[in-house]
Amino acid sequence: MTKGERTRRKIVADAAPVFNTRGYEGSSLNDLMSATGLKKGGIYRHFASKEELAAEAFDYAWAAALECRAPSADEKVSGVAWLKELIDNFVTRRPAVAGGCPLLNTAIEADDGNPILRARVSKALQLWTAQLETVVTRAMRQRQMRSGTDPRQVATIIVSTLEGALMMSRLEKHGDALQQARAHLHDYLDRLAVAAPRRRRTRHSA
Amino acid sequence: MTKGERTRRKIVADAAPVFNTRGYEGSSLNDLMSATGLKKGGIYRHFASKEELAAEAFDYAWAAALECRAPSADEKVSGVAWLKELIDNFVTRRPAVAGGCPLLNTAIEADDGNPILRARVSKALQLWTAQLETVVTRAMRQRQMRSGTDPRQVATIIVSTLEGALMMSRLEKHGDALQQARAHLHDYLDRLAVAAPRRRRTRHSA
Repeated sequence: MTKGERTRRKIVADAAPVFNTRGYEGSSLNDLMSATGLKKGGIYRHFASKEELAAEAFDYAWAAALECRAPSADEKVSGVAWLKELIDNFVTRRPAVAGGCPLLNTAIEADDGNPILRARVSKALQLWTAQLETVVTRAMRQRQMRSGTDPRQVATIIVSTLEGALMMSRLEKHGDALQQARAHLHDYLDRLAVAAPRRRRTRHSA
Repeated sequence: MTKGERTRRKIVADAAPVFNTRGYEGSSLNDLMSATGLKKGGIYRHFASKEELAAEAFDYAWAAALECRAPSADEKVSGVAWLKELIDNFVTRRPAVAGGCPLLNTAIEADDGNPILRARVSKALQLWTAQLETVVTRAMRQRQMRSGTDPRQVATIIVSTLEGALMMSRLEKHGDALQQARAHLHDYLDRLAVAAPRRRRTRHSA
């Protein structure tokens, strides 16, 4: 990696918590200079615009969030356990980049404008839900989850409930909403899971 | 109402969609002047600060959202029908103030700062969840909902799932996530509802 590349990466890492905490519009050049320890020219030698820096900072923060929440269970062996662990990690772990979930923050700010950021966060949501759908589809094929389960619906309910509860918990400054979301989603997955097979009772043994 | 009061109200109504669409930080004085047709002095004769105007605009937008989503069912007679209608209205109706749900938008922007806006949106969330809890508690007393139901949990799951799905639908530019949230929440309420009593079968009629 060249010195220029290292500097570029450091600027992204330093700018990420500023954008994730204050938002794109709320992050001033002064905030970015103070976080990076660079002057305006030192930052914009590496980025064409504030929007380009914000887009890279979003990718960085989102990658950190995905890594922080990644389950240790093998998604190819137990899809239900993998989904439950993802939910638990979302609820209990705080990603390395401060300010809450980058996907939620950036989606809300970019949904009415800012096309570069909007495209990045749309892609992130699409990849995340597609990953959850793949896990559900495989779990159905392996008869861990009921046939007729809608993978897209499961992905939507997990993402929407977690992100909505995170909004509530951050506003309420306590974790009750996230814990309630966790219990609800575990119960939801338990109802979709195929119970371990029992020995069939015969009339004689009844 | 004095002319001054009328002007003040008109400024709030004109500014509300600007703040709800572009965010507090993203709303410039030029945006506000253009929306209200007033010059800086004409706006700030009525408000001490941009923050005060934004707080009033939030209250206005949130009141419009509540009114738009208000069920026609009587919450004192059928709590479950009232909750289902609230969910349907959230999913199908678009409030008068453009830009999405004011509670979600303002919560995300204000959760890390902006104490005046933060206090307003915290209060709004608290009142909304308290209303849902009251409906659930009454429905339990009336034996429409199972005893042992946690009113706070029901309120949290409804609010978080709807707000999270709205974030997804606005980003995806189609309503699938909201429709899936609606189906999921109806199913959730059906499981909490006490089924209408059936005539007990006797051995003779079996």
